[in-house]
Formats: sequence, structure tokens, C-alpha cells
Amino acid sequence: MTQPSSPSAANEELQLLDRYWRAANYLSVGQIYLMDNPLLREPLRPEHIKPRLLGHWGTTPGLNFIYAHLNRVIRHRSLDMIYICGPGHGGPGMVANTWLEGSYSEIYPHISEDAAGMQKLFKQFSFPGGIPSHAAPETPGSINEGGELGYSLSHAFGAVFDYPDLIAACVIGDGEAETGPLASGWHGIKFLNAARDGAVLPILHLNGYKIANPTLLGRASDDDLQQLFSGYGYEPFFVSGNEPEKMHQQMAQTLDQALDNIRRYQQQARSGGEAQAIPRWPMIILRSPKGWTGPQTVDGKKVEGFWRAHQVPVASCRENDEHRQILETWMRSYHPEDLFDEQGRLKPELRALAPEGDKRMGATPYANGGRLRRELQTPAISDYAVEVTTRGEPQVQSTEVLGSYLRDIFTRNQDNFRLFGPDETASNRLSNVFEVTNRTWQEPVEPYDEQLAPDGRVMEILSEHQCQGWLEGYLLTGRHGLFNCYEAFIHIVDSMFNQHAKWLKVTRKLPWREPVSSLNYLLSSHVWRQDHNGYSHQDPGFMDHVANKKADIVRIYLPPDANTLLWVADHCLKTWDRINVIVAGKQPEPQWLTMEEAVKHCEVGLGVWPWAGNEQQGKEPDVVMACAGDVPTMETLAAVDLLRHYLPDLSVRVVNVVDLMALQTQEQHPHGLSQEAFDAIFTKDKPVIFAFHGYPSLIHRLTYLRNNHRNFHVRGFMEEGTTTTPFDMTVMNELDRFHLAQAAILRVDKLQGQADEILDELQEKIAAHHRYVREYGEDLPEVRGWKWPSQQGGGDAPE
Amino acid sequence: MTQPSSPSAANEELQLLDRYWRAANYLSVGQIYLMDNPLLREPLRPEHIKPRLLGHWGTTPGLNFIYAHLNRVIRHRSLDMIYICGPGHGGPGMVANTWLEGSYSEIYPHISEDAAGMQKLFKQFSFPGGIPSHAAPETPGSINEGGELGYSLSHAFGAVFDYPDLIAACVIGDGEAETGPLASGWHGIKFLNAARDGAVLPILHLNGYKIANPTLLGRASDDDLQQLFSGYGYEPFFVSGNEPEKMHQQMAQTLDQALDNIRRYQQQARSGGEAQAIPRWPMIILRSPKGWTGPQTVDGKKVEGFWRAHQVPVASCRENDEHRQILETWMRSYHPEDLFDEQGRLKPELRALAPEGDKRMGATPYANGGRLRRELQTPAISDYAVEVTTRGEPQVQSTEVLGSYLRDIFTRNQDNFRLFGPDETASNRLSNVFEVTNRTWQEPVEPYDEQLAPDGRVMEILSEHQCQGWLEGYLLTGRHGLFNCYEAFIHIVDSMFNQHAKWLKVTRKLPWREPVSSLNYLLSSHVWRQDHNGYSHQDPGFMDHVANKKADIVRIYLPPDANTLLWVADHCLKTWDRINVIVAGKQPEPQWLTMEEAVKHCEVGLGVWPWAGNEQQGKEPDVVMACAGDVPTMETLAAVDLLRHYLPDLSVRVVNVVDLMALQTQEQHPHGLSQEAFDAIFTKDKPVIFAFHGYPSLIHRLTYLRNNHRNFHVRGFMEEGTTTTPFDMTVMNELDRFHLAQAAILRVDKLQGQADEILDELQEKIAAHHRYVREYGEDLPEVRGWKWPSQQGGGDAPE
Repeated sequence: MTQPSSPSAANEELQLLDRYWRAANYLSVGQIYLMDNPLLREPLRPEHIKPRLLGHWGTTPGLNFIYAHLNRVIRHRSLDMIYICGPGHGGPGMVANTWLEGSYSEIYPHISEDAAGMQKLFKQFSFPGGIPSHAAPETPGSINEGGELGYSLSHAFGAVFDYPDLIAACVIGDGEAETGPLASGWHGIKFLNAARDGAVLPILHLNGYKIANPTLLGRASDDDLQQLFSGYGYEPFFVSGNEPEKMHQQMAQTLDQALDNIRRYQQQARSGGEAQAIPRWPMIILRSPKGWTGPQTVDGKKVEGFWRAHQVPVASCRENDEHRQILETWMRSYHPEDLFDEQGRLKPELRALAPEGDKRMGATPYANGGRLRRELQTPAISDYAVEVTTRGEPQVQSTEVLGSYLRDIFTRNQDNFRLFGPDETASNRLSNVFEVTNRTWQEPVEPYDEQLAPDGRVMEILSEHQCQGWLEGYLLTGRHGLFNCYEAFIHIVDSMFNQHAKWLKVTRKLPWREPVSSLNYLLSSHVWRQDHNGYSHQDPGFMDHVANKKADIVRIYLPPDANTLLWVADHCLKTWDRINVIVAGKQPEPQWLTMEEAVKHCEVGLGVWPWAGNEQQGKEPDVVMACAGDVPTMETLAAVDLLRHYLPDLSVRVVNVVDLMALQTQEQHPHGLSQEAFDAIFTKDKPVIFAFHGYPSLIHRLTYLRNNHRNFHVRGFMEEGTTTTPFDMTVMNELDRFHLAQAAILRVDKLQGQADEILDELQEKIAAHHRYVREYGEDLPEVRGWKWPSQQGGGDAPE
Repeated sequence: MTQPSSPSAANEELQLLDRYWRAANYLSVGQIYLMDNPLLREPLRPEHIKPRLLGHWGTTPGLNFIYAHLNRVIRHRSLDMIYICGPGHGGPGMVANTWLEGSYSEIYPHISEDAAGMQKLFKQFSFPGGIPSHAAPETPGSINEGGELGYSLSHAFGAVFDYPDLIAACVIGDGEAETGPLASGWHGIKFLNAARDGAVLPILHLNGYKIANPTLLGRASDDDLQQLFSGYGYEPFFVSGNEPEKMHQQMAQTLDQALDNIRRYQQQARSGGEAQAIPRWPMIILRSPKGWTGPQTVDGKKVEGFWRAHQVPVASCRENDEHRQILETWMRSYHPEDLFDEQGRLKPELRALAPEGDKRMGATPYANGGRLRRELQTPAISDYAVEVTTRGEPQVQSTEVLGSYLRDIFTRNQDNFRLFGPDETASNRLSNVFEVTNRTWQEPVEPYDEQLAPDGRVMEILSEHQCQGWLEGYLLTGRHGLFNCYEAFIHIVDSMFNQHAKWLKVTRKLPWREPVSSLNYLLSSHVWRQDHNGYSHQDPGFMDHVANKKADIVRIYLPPDANTLLWVADHCLKTWDRINVIVAGKQPEPQWLTMEEAVKHCEVGLGVWPWAGNEQQGKEPDVVMACAGDVPTMETLAAVDLLRHYLPDLSVRVVNVVDLMALQTQEQHPHGLSQEAFDAIFTKDKPVIFAFHGYPSLIHRLTYLRNNHRNFHVRGFMEEGTTTTPFDMTVMNELDRFHLAQAAILRVDKLQGQADEILDELQEKIAAHHRYVREYGEDLPEVRGWKWPSQQGGGDAPE
């Protein structure tokens, strides 16, 4: 269908559209209230009503209004559009609309397009064994659940990057618009390249109320709103009122205008002309009543246009006859007989209003990104391998090596991969990527600026929320990416991580949802190396947070050097439907494993480093020195060096852990080592001194089901820190070589009472450190200059 | 000193002010670079330079500029002002200014006001054993560390609520201004009552660059900025340039104008006239070069006015003679001989520019809130006690009872307590507070609105970030408050919690920082009761996050009913320098303890409920059924009821845990039970079935050092959820009575093989539940109707 040819045809179209909207509203109310009698073919009786009335009506008629109007422009203009439903608790609206357009029943054939299907559609909503109340993963066309508010706009921008044909219509409730992440989300247009990317059409839906309060923007004057959004860089269009007929006309005209503008800006940018200022992208401010078309009053109290319409506007409809009558009158006001045929199917003249096939917003592959996902093209990690001929050398910035690998990922995946970060890409030593790309920058560029370009593919904004939200949107629509961030500040997105992990947990069980690429974090500038910063920047707790989520979703890696980091990053980038956390330092650090060794080590996830220990074949060691993380690994090896020096007869085993989940049992995590393999490595009864990058409790939590758990003595971050030297940080938290060597001596039975002088000497070294560092501001020469003595011990230089 | 009387006097004042600014800049550079030769009385030699050059120069000259100008208006107008340093990494500037005004040396006498003190001042900065690099707790006058960016404006608003005489000058870097929390923070004026509260003067400091990138607002046009901040409701004033003389004039005039406007708005509001629209509060947009007055170029590369000035503009000054010369020229450009006298003291004509006594921003008691803190006046909790005459009755919404208590807190503390929440106060059933106060609302009020008023004391904005930030600001300036929030969404402020916990950890050790009231969370609408919502709203992991922090800072409480909730809330509100987390349900739930019992139970933190078990005096039970949290407690008691029914001879002990930290050892936490007391309650070797509100791993983590830990079998949230009945939620996570009873049977040795029929019966009950709930949408009548059989067992009705 194309655009109507005359005013009267246009008018007729809007009358049909109004009926379509009524159908969606009818189905939305039905979902909240009914378990039977879906078409009201008989008077409403108590047993037709659900025993528990759950759902959010308030926002839903507005969502339906927008959906119907978007259908119109999709048809007229043959658009590829996705619907980002910011007010995700308007789930009944999304479900209603996808059922009307047929996409729902295609995915869920048991919810058929007839009266029987409608009855099931109603009953299943917010019903045990049924579907959730939000625009959940189960909802066709959704990539934004919206249970937690704030991320719709970030998801919308993430979705359209590198999809020039896509338009994300993003409905933002005025409640959500009060959140911080949404408020910074408006800046997305400053990262949108009209030539290369699609467009976001924000629709700020002001219905005036939250749960029990007016909203700030709902009460703001049009003039203030006009200025606010102009200041963000948009051209705002207002659609305002409560009379359906006028509202349909306003909305249709406004959408046409907005889409004309989008097309014009895109054509200008794509015609190869001069680069120009950022277009004044359109946005729509839609003011409509909360609970529009619902009951005006209930029990004498205002409902429509007020916060009482937020959830279930009229309660107790089973028990209360008067309320049930209000409900029936309300539902009949939509005239179901005028909307659905004898079989309960949407009448054909209305069905014709929906787009067809993949143009339907419930069927678009953009909202089921796995359908569009192309494999990431990766170079061989061996091309970037650090040559390790002597253990501990060279000193290398591991993330810098990774930067070269990522550079070549960019080269091979020119429209399919982006790197995100809050202005920390260079700080995290990934600057090699700038050899082939730039930071995305649409605002003016000064002559002395560096690495900024409108077609840059490194996305930097000082908002972890935007980095995460953009990346989620980018992944959920079928692409690949990596978020690099200071370790301490990744907590800013704890809650977003949660919601994404929950999303993945559900989608993995939905066969129609194709897998999407994993969400990968590179956490650098970590707790142990915050040279320019202090205590505020020191927190390794994100790992604890991640470990709470379902085992099949999450992975945590702590590569100790560059070659292991390469393997881990390469592995993570190739996975799907997971969240991978990589923690790796950016400062120069010793290199331990050849690439060949790194591959073997990482494939298992943890293992003995025989060259670092001095145990005898076939005999269990006296003590196991375990480590996870680059700094703990270095301190552990330095501690082993001390032990060899002081106690050459002590038999020491060194175990390094890269994949934290390997510590768990196989029942707990798919990467878990078997009990036998674990015992073979950690022994059943020898003391294990475990130097860990994070909070010690996480190691206890991961190993408490292991036979030798009672002998695990974990050192890690004890929440002690400030601006000081890197080594002093480890001393403050007793993770340094001296404390680790002491801990080992104290735990080996046969040494009790035999090594007091050594303990004292180690204590004196700690004291000497304190004196030296406070006097000279740097670490003891013996610490700074320490190198792994490769000629020593059982092992030797790598082959 | 009062306002200069003539233009030439004003001019002279600005010339002095420029010298003052130069002194602050000189001291800032000195802190970053020097460990000796502080006054450059001899040529700069390598050994004068610190071995590690750390710090952030870029923002500092701007911060110093602002500080000097604020001093001027404080003196002229006798203002009470605090300086919120958004760019907290400009720490050297805060330190320099407080040293210049004398407040630093008063607090830290060893950093005296002379050359020797200056040398120590320089050396200590970012030096081991010295002071941190940010506007840290150690910094006089700071309430905003600024290591993690985003919260300066929220802290500023929180600080001025209920302090009508206070003005918070809030410097916001253009990096910070990109964050979400800051972007929503601008809405603070909509909650500011000009009659009752003080004022915030935001100074958006656009120096154009972040770490390695331009900033969005720095590159925005003046016109866009004008519109953006007008749209937020402010009147923006621009101060822009790089020539000091002109900038001083502009800044002085602008500050005078802004403060005139603030005074006018306050006088209007306080003159008792009609309530009016929200004033167009002034804000200042200060555009000045990054690294202003620093080296223009280094090694041929642009530094001043560019991101290379962000941290240390010229590096390696020890090793590189040329660089050292740049540094020396730079420092001498401030003419230290013109600023400091022979002894190294600030010259008297400059010292006279600083305010005196508590008017100095480094000495103001508002920034050391404990000095102003008044005790909270609390009613007796017994006045609100729920009368429990039969165990399990009445069914009460525990948070509603708490609401009555909070109502009377409001009555007794009319300018000293506020309740914060993201539009969830009513949802969390605290509405009784609205009997005596309203929601703070300055925007228009409609006739049908409820509980909105300009003088309301319940702060609701749909931004957890603002709730947390406002509360932090309110507490740090000496007041009391409570943040109520849905449990799942409190993760949004994980990172803010972190920073506040870190702040408290440091301030507790600073004798000059007086204690401030604890930050109290009430988490309701918790994971087990999300009737209107689903999986997205289900997450109990905030407790895990909190448990990572220092033991002397954090407390977590899980009161199982209303009387215990009253005790816990009352207790928390009376504490200081802590963060207390209370998790409590809002739905009707059985009541277990009389107030007298509740007090005894809560004082210990956990204990046996003898009335609920059936063990024989003097004999250990067969199994311990432990619980923490309201829903787990109910399910545990229902499980015990089942066990008594099926296995009357089984000896069962019931233990309830209110204070989670009591589970830890005394070495781990001050609330920890002794090993003996713990063993007496949990036994040394009997199975413990522990039903827990949160993730099971937290209980393992807290108890792994306990003798009986290996017999702890914990049930909790396993990340299974959706929109369903409350009981079905427990079944999905195997925390329900049937699974708990099964777990007990399976763990008691003597029952092995003896109770298979009972296990089968319980399994059939689970199956029956599944059938029923999916058919009827509500729980089995035997579940819904279950009541604790008070006539049964060893205990009976409470006395």
C-alpha cells in the first residue's frame, strides 16, 4: 500500500487506523483482566476475570497509538523499523500489536489468530506458566525489556549504528526520562553518522505521571521542553491532546514531517557532499492522557489522565459487581464486534493496515539480531604473540599487544565491530587501533585534534551507561563489540549487566531467538595499578557481581600476560549469548608463557606451571602457591623466588588460574574442573596460598565444595588503598611477595618453629619497604629490579 | 572586608585576586612535581623532582580561579558557602587553596604555613604515606571526592536542603557533565524550595577535553548550551576566554549578578508572598583553557588548551633537562617571590583576600557535617508494636507499620530528616508518612493532585542516582535520612554505595571529621514479592555487593516481621558512619514475635525460636531449620509444620537470622557471634537447612569459617523468576516449604531410606502446585490458607 492519494482517502485511512488502535487497546485490557469470554460474546461474569489482576495499563494506549501510526509510515515508505518500548511495563501493548499483525502467532502457533487464540493470549499474560508483564525477551520485536528504566535511547542508538536502512522508533516514558542514563542518552545523535548509520526517532511520551507522582517533564512547559531538546541538538515536534480524531491527524502529519526530515538528512549525507554539521534530527513530544480511553473515574476518584491509571485502573472485578460493570463498559467501548470477525480474527480491512513479512515490527530481523549476525573475522593470535625466551621477559604492556589484534579486527570487520569506552581507550593502552580507525566524532574538529572522525569506529563518551547501552543495542541487532573500562567504575553498570544477563538467560531458551554475540568487557587500569589515582579507583568487586548470575551465561578471565590475554580475548569475541569479563593490566609487566604454552594453559583454564615450581616428580609438594591475575601472579613468582632462596628444600608447586569458573565444580559451572582433576592440581590436603586479584571471598565461594577448601588461604584486595606505588598497594593488602612467602612458611607443618628467622627477615623486608617508599616515593631497588631467575629451579627457559 | 567603593579599588582588588590565583596555581604545580626547593630559591635540580610524577593539572587552574573568586564574594557578602569540586582529581587545587586560607594547617599542623610546611605540602601529594590525589576525605572542605564522576550536583543539592543560609558552589567539569547521573542532577532545582532551602550555584567548567578527547558540551555552541540549560530551568551566564585580566572582570561581575539573583529569589520566597513558579536560578558556564597558564607546547606538541594538559603536562623532569627547564620556567612565571614572603608565608595583602574563620570554605562546618549534626528525635518503637497473641497473626504489611513510625520521625524532626525514593514510597507502603508531610514539589500542582507541596519532605524522583546523591549530601552536611527503593533496582547505585563506603572508611580514621549519620536503605518490593512485575525486578544481589566492604562500615538486616523491622529501623537511624541495609517485604505477611521478643532477638542478631521447634531440652536436634528474610522465614515455618505432621519424632530446631553479619566470626565483623555461641545455636555437626532471602553463596561466604559449615545446605534465589504467584517464585527456586521439608529429610542420617513415601508425598504436592497454579492462576488453597498451628509443638502462644 502506498500513500493515500487524496485528503478523503487519508481521512478514511485514519478512521481505519483508529479502529486498529481500538483493537490493540481492547486486546491490552483483555490481557490484564480476562481469562475467558475474550470477545465479550456473553455478559462478563466473575469467572471470566483473572483471580490476580496484574499489569500496567497507564502507558499502554499511548504505546498502541504510536505502534499503529508507525505501521502506517512503514507501509507508506517501506521502512525497516524497530520499536523500542521504553515503558516496557506496557508489555500488553507490544503483545497486542504483534498478535494483530500476525507475527505473534507465527512464533507462538498455539496463540492462534482466532477467538481460541485470543482467549489464550489473554489468559497467559502475567499468569503462572504464561508470559511476563514487560516487553520481555519473549515478546516479538523487543530488544528492550524496560523493567528497569533508563536504557531505551541507548539501545536505540546502538541498534542503528552501521545499519543505514534502519530507523529505531524509541518511545521514552516521562518516568524513564527522569533517569540519569536516559538524560545522557540524548547525546547519541552526536555519535550518529547520517551517511553510515540509521536513524533514531525518539518519541517522548508524556502522559504526566509515574507510579504515584507527576513527572518532571510532564509538568514542564512546552517552551522549556522546546529549549531543552533544542539544546540537546534536536528539532522537537509536539503532538498534544486527548481527542482521538485530532490526535490521529496531528500524529500522522508529524510523523510524515519527521520522516521526511530524516530522509532528507540521510540523502544529503549520502550524496557525497561536504561533511556538515550534525543534522537537527527530529524528535516527537507526545502528550496524551495516562490510561487514555480507560475509565474516567472509579469509586469517584479520577483515573484517566492521572496516576491511578498506572497499573490496574479498576480492581477487584471478580468480587465487585460495580467494578466488573465498569470493566465491561470500558471494554465494550472499543466495539469488539466492529474489530474482530465471527472467528475472532482481526477484520481484513484492519489487517491490511499492518506491514507485511519482515517489515512488521514484531518480525523484523533487526530485533532478533542473531538472524543478521555475521561471524567476526579474526586474525590468528600467533601473529601478535610476544616472544618469551626468558621467563618474565620482555616487560610488555599486555593491553597494548591486544590493541594490535583489535586493530586488525577493525580492518577485517569494517561495518560489524565497534569498541566502546568512557574516554579510556588510550589510557588502557589500546591506541594501536587508531592506526586504522578513529574515535567517532560528529561535532566540530579542530586542526590539532587527533584521531577524531565522523566515520571513526571507537565510541567514547564519558558515560559508562551509554557505552554499555550502545553495545547492548549493537549486539542485540547482530553485531560484535568490546567495552573497555577502568575496573573500578564498571560497577556503574552493575544493574545494566544484570538486566542483560537476565535477557540472555531467557533468550537462550527461546528457539526463535537466534544467538547474539557475547557482551565482552575488558577491565583494565585495575585495582592494583592506579598510579595516577587513588582509593576511589580501586575496586575489583565486579567479578563478584558477575559470579551471581547463571553459570551458562558468565565467564571471568584473568590472563597473567599478553599471550594469555590474546587467547582469552580471541576466544571471547568468538562466543555467543554470554557475558565475558576479562581483567588485564595496562602497565609494563613480565611475560611468562610462550603462545604455545598460553593456548594450552587457557584451554584448560588453570594449571600447574612446572617451570615455576620445584616439586619432585611423583611427590606431592609441601605447599601450593596459586595465583589469578597479573599482579598476583608476579608477586607469587617473586614469593616463590624468596622461598627457594631461603628454603631450597621446600617443595613448591605453582598454579595459575586464568578462567575463574574452572575453580567451580562441574555441577556448578560448565567450565568447572572435575573433583579428580582439581585434587590432582591443588592436592587434597596441602596448604594452598592463593594470591587473587579480587576480594578473597570470591575464591572461597568458588571453591567451597572442593576437598581441599579448608586449606585454601586466600590473599586479595582487603579494601586498603590510596595513591601510592604499585608494590605498596600489594603490601597494604598483604598480597606482596614478602607476605605471601610468610604465609606459605606459616602453613607448612614441618616448618613450624624451624623458620622463625626467615619470617623475621621477611618482616624486616616489609619494614624496609615502608621506610624506603615513604622516604623516596618509589619502591625498593630489589623490588623494582626483581626478575624471575630463569636459571634456577626445576624448570627453565621455555622451549 | 566589604565591597570596594570605587572602580579603581575594584580593579586593585582584582589585581590582588590574580596574584592569589597565581599563588594557588604555583602551589598546585609544586604538589605535582616537587619534593624539595619549594620556593625555587635555587635552580631546579633533578633531586628536587619527585621520582613519580602524578596528578591532574588540566582542570586545576580553573578550579583555583573559581575558588579565588568565591572567596571574594564570601567576604563581600558574608556568605556561608561550600565548594563542591566535581573534578575531584583537581585535588591539588583544593589543597592549595585551603593551605593559602590557613584551614589546612589548622587541621594538619605539621603542614605549617611557611617554607618547611610548603615543602611537606608538595612532597606529601600522591606520595606514599602522604595524601591522595583527589578532593578526598582528607581534603578540608570536601564532601565530594570526585574520583568517580557524576555526583557533584546531587551532593550539592543534598547539602543545601534545609540549610537556608548555605550556598553550594558546584563546579562541574565538562567530562562529568557527560555522565547520566549528572545530566539528571540538573533537575535538582525542581526540588529546591527557595524559602526553606539554600541555593546551588552550578559552575559548568568547560575546558574542552577529557583524558584524550574533546567533550560534548565543550564543543557545543553557546546557543545550544543556552537552550539546554534554559530548558532545564536555569538562567545561564557565560564567562569565556583565556586572558586573565578580562576573565577576572567577567567572573567577578557574573558572580555578583548570580548572587544578587539568588538573594532576590530567596528574599521573594521568604517574604511570605504568594507561592510562585520555580525561580530561574543562575548557573555559570565558564569556558577556560585546559591547563590554563601551563606550558603551551612540550616537545613541539600542543599542551595548554588541549587534552595533553590533563595530567602531568611535562613528564620526566628528573631525567630530561629540557623538560625540567620548561617546568622551572613555568613555575617561575607565577613569580613566587611576589606571592610568598621570606619565610614562605603568603604575603599579608593576599592572605587578606581569604575569608576568615568558619567562612573559609576549607573550614566551614557544612563540609564537616558531624559538627552540625543534631541527634535524631525518635519515638518509642513500642508505640507501634504489632500485638502478636497467636503466632503468625495478624497478617500485616510490615512496612506500613514502619510508615507510622517514620511519620512520627517527621513530626519530631521537622528540618533534620528526609525520606528519599524513586517514586516508590507509596508502593513500598510507607504512605502513613503523608499524614504529616508531602512529596516535595515545586512545579505546578493540579487540583486533583495528592500529597504534593513545596514544603514536602519526601523526595521522589525517578532516579536512584539522585536519591542516593541527595541523601549523601544531606548526611555529609549533618542530617538524617532514609532511602527506600525496590530491592532489584538498588544495584543502579552500586557504584555510589562503593564510593560512600570508601569515604566513610577514611573519615572514620580522621579525628577532625566528626561522625555523620549512617546511610540507611530500606529495600522493599523485594525479589520474592514482585506481583506486578517479573524477572527484571528480581535480584537480591545488593547484599553481596555490600558485604564486600569493610566490616566496620556495613550492616545488613533481614527482619522477618513488623516488630523486628521497627527495632532494626530504629537502631539504624540512631547509628553513625555506617551503611545499613534493611530488606523487608511490603505485602501482608504473618507476624511472629511480640515486641519484647523482637527486641531480644534483634539485639543478638540471630537466635533459636524455641516455640517453633520441637527439640528436647538438653539434647541436640536432628536438624536445624534456619532462615533469614520474611518469605524464607514463613516457608521455613511451614516446612517445620510439614515435618511435624509427617515425622513427629524428628527433633527440629528453628533459627532465625536478622543481622546477617552475626553469622561471621568475631574476627571478621564486630557483630560476629563467638564460635562457641555459634556452635551452641547451629550445632557442630547437625544438618542445617538454611532458607535465605538472597543468593545462597552469601551465606556460605559468611559462614565458611564456622565449624559446622560443611553441613550448611542453603536455599535461596537461584536466578529463576518471572511474573507469577509469590509461592510459585519460591517453588521455582526450591525455597518453598515442600522443598525445604524434603531437604531436611534428605540430610538427616537416621531417616535415610525410612521416609521415601514422605518424600514422594511432598513431591506430589509440588506437582499439584504446578498443576493448580497454571490452571487457576493462584496458589493451592492449602498454601494460601496455611497458618502456623500455635497449639502444636513445644512452644505456644507468646506470653
